[in-house]
Amino acid sequence: MNVTADQPYGPDSLASDVPHPTRPLTLTQALQLPRIVIEDTMPVIDGGLFAVKGIAGQKVTVTSKVFADGHDKLAVRVCWRADGEENWQDAPMRDLGNDSWIGEFTPTSVDRYVFRLEAWIDQYASYRYELEKKFAAGVPIELELEEGRLHLLHAAERSQGALRQQIESVLERLGQIDSDARVALLLHSETSALMVQADNRAFLSRSIEFPLDVERQLAQFASWYELFPRSITDDPARHGTFNDVHSRLPMIRDMGFDVLYFPPIHPIGRAHRKGPNNSLTAGPDDPGSPYAIGSEDGGHEAIHPQLGTLEDFRNLVAAAAEHGLEIALDFAIQCSQDHPWLKQHPGWFSWRPDGTIRYAENPPKKYQDIVNVDFYAADAIPSLWLELRDIVLGWVEEGVKIFRVDNPHTKPLPFWQWMIDDIRRQHPDVMFLAEAFTKPAMMARLGKVGYSQSYTYFTWRNTKAELSEYFTQLNQAPLRHCYRPNFFVNTPDINPYFLHESGRAGFLIRAALATMGSGLWGMYSGFELCESAPIPGKEEYLDSEKYEIRVRDFTAPGNIIAEIAQLNRIRRQNPALQTHLGLKLYAAWNDNILYFGKRSDDGSNFILVAVSLDPFNAQEAHFELPLWDMGLPDDAATSGEDLMTGHRWTWYGKIQWMRIDPSYQPFGIWRIQAAN
Amino acid sequence: MNVTADQPYGPDSLASDVPHPTRPLTLTQALQLPRIVIEDTMPVIDGGLFAVKGIAGQKVTVTSKVFADGHDKLAVRVCWRADGEENWQDAPMRDLGNDSWIGEFTPTSVDRYVFRLEAWIDQYASYRYELEKKFAAGVPIELELEEGRLHLLHAAERSQGALRQQIESVLERLGQIDSDARVALLLHSETSALMVQADNRAFLSRSIEFPLDVERQLAQFASWYELFPRSITDDPARHGTFNDVHSRLPMIRDMGFDVLYFPPIHPIGRAHRKGPNNSLTAGPDDPGSPYAIGSEDGGHEAIHPQLGTLEDFRNLVAAAAEHGLEIALDFAIQCSQDHPWLKQHPGWFSWRPDGTIRYAENPPKKYQDIVNVDFYAADAIPSLWLELRDIVLGWVEEGVKIFRVDNPHTKPLPFWQWMIDDIRRQHPDVMFLAEAFTKPAMMARLGKVGYSQSYTYFTWRNTKAELSEYFTQLNQAPLRHCYRPNFFVNTPDINPYFLHESGRAGFLIRAALATMGSGLWGMYSGFELCESAPIPGKEEYLDSEKYEIRVRDFTAPGNIIAEIAQLNRIRRQNPALQTHLGLKLYAAWNDNILYFGKRSDDGSNFILVAVSLDPFNAQEAHFELPLWDMGLPDDAATSGEDLMTGHRWTWYGKIQWMRIDPSYQPFGIWRIQAAN
Repeated sequence: MNVTADQPYGPDSLASDVPHPTRPLTLTQALQLPRIVIEDTMPVIDGGLFAVKGIAGQKVTVTSKVFADGHDKLAVRVCWRADGEENWQDAPMRDLGNDSWIGEFTPTSVDRYVFRLEAWIDQYASYRYELEKKFAAGVPIELELEEGRLHLLHAAERSQGALRQQIESVLERLGQIDSDARVALLLHSETSALMVQADNRAFLSRSIEFPLDVERQLAQFASWYELFPRSITDDPARHGTFNDVHSRLPMIRDMGFDVLYFPPIHPIGRAHRKGPNNSLTAGPDDPGSPYAIGSEDGGHEAIHPQLGTLEDFRNLVAAAAEHGLEIALDFAIQCSQDHPWLKQHPGWFSWRPDGTIRYAENPPKKYQDIVNVDFYAADAIPSLWLELRDIVLGWVEEGVKIFRVDNPHTKPLPFWQWMIDDIRRQHPDVMFLAEAFTKPAMMARLGKVGYSQSYTYFTWRNTKAELSEYFTQLNQAPLRHCYRPNFFVNTPDINPYFLHESGRAGFLIRAALATMGSGLWGMYSGFELCESAPIPGKEEYLDSEKYEIRVRDFTAPGNIIAEIAQLNRIRRQNPALQTHLGLKLYAAWNDNILYFGKRSDDGSNFILVAVSLDPFNAQEAHFELPLWDMGLPDDAATSGEDLMTGHRWTWYGKIQWMRIDPSYQPFGIWRIQAAN
Repeated sequence: MNVTADQPYGPDSLASDVPHPTRPLTLTQALQLPRIVIEDTMPVIDGGLFAVKGIAGQKVTVTSKVFADGHDKLAVRVCWRADGEENWQDAPMRDLGNDSWIGEFTPTSVDRYVFRLEAWIDQYASYRYELEKKFAAGVPIELELEEGRLHLLHAAERSQGALRQQIESVLERLGQIDSDARVALLLHSETSALMVQADNRAFLSRSIEFPLDVERQLAQFASWYELFPRSITDDPARHGTFNDVHSRLPMIRDMGFDVLYFPPIHPIGRAHRKGPNNSLTAGPDDPGSPYAIGSEDGGHEAIHPQLGTLEDFRNLVAAAAEHGLEIALDFAIQCSQDHPWLKQHPGWFSWRPDGTIRYAENPPKKYQDIVNVDFYAADAIPSLWLELRDIVLGWVEEGVKIFRVDNPHTKPLPFWQWMIDDIRRQHPDVMFLAEAFTKPAMMARLGKVGYSQSYTYFTWRNTKAELSEYFTQLNQAPLRHCYRPNFFVNTPDINPYFLHESGRAGFLIRAALATMGSGLWGMYSGFELCESAPIPGKEEYLDSEKYEIRVRDFTAPGNIIAEIAQLNRIRRQNPALQTHLGLKLYAAWNDNILYFGKRSDDGSNFILVAVSLDPFNAQEAHFELPLWDMGLPDDAATSGEDLMTGHRWTWYGKIQWMRIDPSYQPFGIWRIQAAN
């Protein structure tokens, strides 16, 4: 394995024409270099090495620095096309001054797109600019008028058909009128329009093609609900089934969720099975961790018999769809020691001198019931890679389009890059969520190699400073272009410290932050019941559902089901909340109150969110209404609407005051608009 | 002309292996992708498209993000070599945490260099880490000890000669000692050193090669003095000559300058010759602008007869060298209408319908005595490009190694990229200074395509806010890696508004800012005499030397020659001042006082500079000594030395007070160090 990283891609056609900067540049090569510079194009990830993320139907705004020597006017266009399309579409870009240009386009389908920029010297615009200036200054312009005639003449000569006739007719009129009228004709917008059509695009310069991965709306705006199907039972002694899950669908949908995610549903191994609370010895009736995949009943392609049959699974997928819910499965590339692969493909594993396989670790966590495959073992290439891809394809064929991937950062990046690309080229609507909790560079890289969404640090960001910094970072390049954050408020593995003692108000705080902070959020069941009993001192649930069946009463008092349903309803009704992008922090002068705004692209939907981070005490603050972002003066009147209660009022002026009492509700969500 | 801009380069060997991100990635290709990521490497310009600037003998610090899946230890090295060298040198990089790595190397010769990063999985380091942890935890390690033995065995098998023998001898000892001793032997630094030598560099990943252009010290640290040789006379009626310039050399050298720069020395055209103060008609004795190049006496290769002969020029170059001065010539690609090219090469120009050529403009300036060549005229390719290159080469052969280029931003960038590359590959010590005053993107791009130094916006940055922002910008990436600012305090074309009324103190202010702000600064003669008479309301000199011979008395009272000499002396004695890099702004609580520090790379030389921007009134301020940057506590005692006067004192604590009186001296320059 001896390969080159950090490799910017270039179109093949140029690879031989342009020398590496360390080698001499010949004159022949220099004459092929573009006269017009196109640089700093955005959105671009790593110079075009990876695709930027987009959503079908959502505008992509493109900016770039475009300039050349001298003082000629430039024409700049952005061009784009979907993967399968022959022809480019294009649109003009606008000069913002200082060589900055801006343009936009809207990809319409779920597909791989490319876009590129084109720039050329707009000779007629340059001419018009000069003519206009000289005419206004009253200096002699006979020579300029003759040059104008020649511009038209040459344009006619290189044109054909109707265009040629139209330009020739302008030329004819030009010969029949006086000097002032000739100036007017040469500057006329219709003449300019003809000349744009006939433009020979002098010194045409093209950027490379930048990739754009356009996904469906659910990649950016979705509410995930996680449950263990085996726990959908009224008796811990009776293993829940796919058929039992049907009964939960209406309530989950009523709470406003659209993705229903199951931890692995595959046969669970017996060897080294974990007992309650991650103990190393299981009793005969302990169900084991579903992450210890594989038994004599099969591996990743099979269903754990106690959950039901493949037919039951298909029925559940269909029933969920009827409730507006998509099923997401867990893709956990790991095996119990009973997984058929150990016997069928011993070469896929790395064996120790004593004939055992090292069990998995994700420091400081130890998974004694799990072993990992070795992606680069001689016998694993390419059979393991193909098998893993085919397992995912198999579930896609069962109607599963969403996969939550367990610990992707401990599997090789080239594997993900290939597998996600391969599957999404056949099934563009398939999405992968990266469950990586690791260092920032890897988190971002997983997004770059193809993950549609990612778990985040949100779960550990509690203070105003931490949340402000993190929300801001997610809104900045490069992260904003390659990483879609899915804010999980809890997971079977993470019982956040903040919630251990916070009570119900703490759950509402985290739910408000997650639902308002990102278009993507997720909840593991029990959160709505404010479950928080930890293993003392640890960030883990006591009696974790990973190791036992857990029966719940979803109507238990003190639950926050109604609030969650309302938060999700507010998200559906307000486009500004359907993405983590567009979030801006505003001033509330109290370090316990996080206050931010989100505005839709067209500005028509503007939501203000204030969350008290204190679950125990009422907090008060003066705060600023962002009138400047609405184009309003500091003394403007604005209409406010409380989206939790429907109350409406009028604010006068910029500085306002709030009081947030967690015993009632620890946050406020307000829609603001200019008062009539 | 139909070419592609914004083209990241990649090594040829990979161009066919790795597909563009918009095309499907095959499994075969994926298996060739690097497992270890190397990204965000610095210093790099535009992904490696252009060379980063370096100086021979000066350290290059390289940082990068390097990471892989899983938890294995990585080894990362930076490798480098000069253009002609066969072998790479390399040095280890250090892990800073969060996947950030840092390393350094020092290029020793004036040459093109490349550097790249290499990373691999350090299997023995990963093993050692695990063994150490498990041994400390007291868990059974028999299996680990056997794995250690196998590591050594395999290392021996793939090694030869002495290394193999040494590893085999460790293996032998390993078989003879008890378990604790085996742990000690396996963890021993000598064993590790052997294993580093025998490392098979698993999953070796290489970055692309990043270019580095290493120049001589004068590219970063130089003081330029500009004069018109024809003005070195005691009588405006007698044209000064090269021979006259000899008399000025000692004084210029005594002021501390090392580059002596002449505006064009070529024959001056008669056609449309400008008269005094840029008037459109010249009298018979008016010398004309030296920028109107070319007459029947020759063009860019010739010397204006009134200045002397080629022999005189050679003598002057030699005499200047004896005084420690290098001559810089002006390379102004433009012609008077009497230039021989108009007849010899009419195809190099763009002719208007009436048989004339458009005169040059650099809006709002008009140059009626000058016409420009057309680089892309059919007849100009490649003859004009070659001719221009050969002209420069001709002067290089006369001993000129420095060229100030007039208005490079109005000539095609590919021309500069080719010409500078071509000349510097033959003569690596040749340098070009870009005289571009235009928008920021072009200013930076000229640095990228090869200019060693550039004119700047310094001349128009007067307030504390403006100067703070500009100094900071020049110290940040990407500018710090591609753009070396030469701070000219004035030029024949720029008589800064600030100096019109500022009096002598204003000249000292600008001299202090330029000399202390950048390693490169420049002065056009007359500045030392505080000349400032403008054309009323304009940023131009009255009776500009561009159009007439100007006799000066360089001993006139009120001059600032002694101060300039002292400022240049301070620069020579303090390495921290020999570059614009390393400048940091510190707090002085007065908006009229700019206060900053500069520290040499090794921290041994630390200079503080306070400049009052008010030439009229005394200014006072409390200010902070940057004790934190010296690793000192807030109450530390430090020694200060006034580098203008030699006075010394002790400061106690961080907050100090200053008073700057422009009637005495509008700035202070202090060397600070911890008190003994």
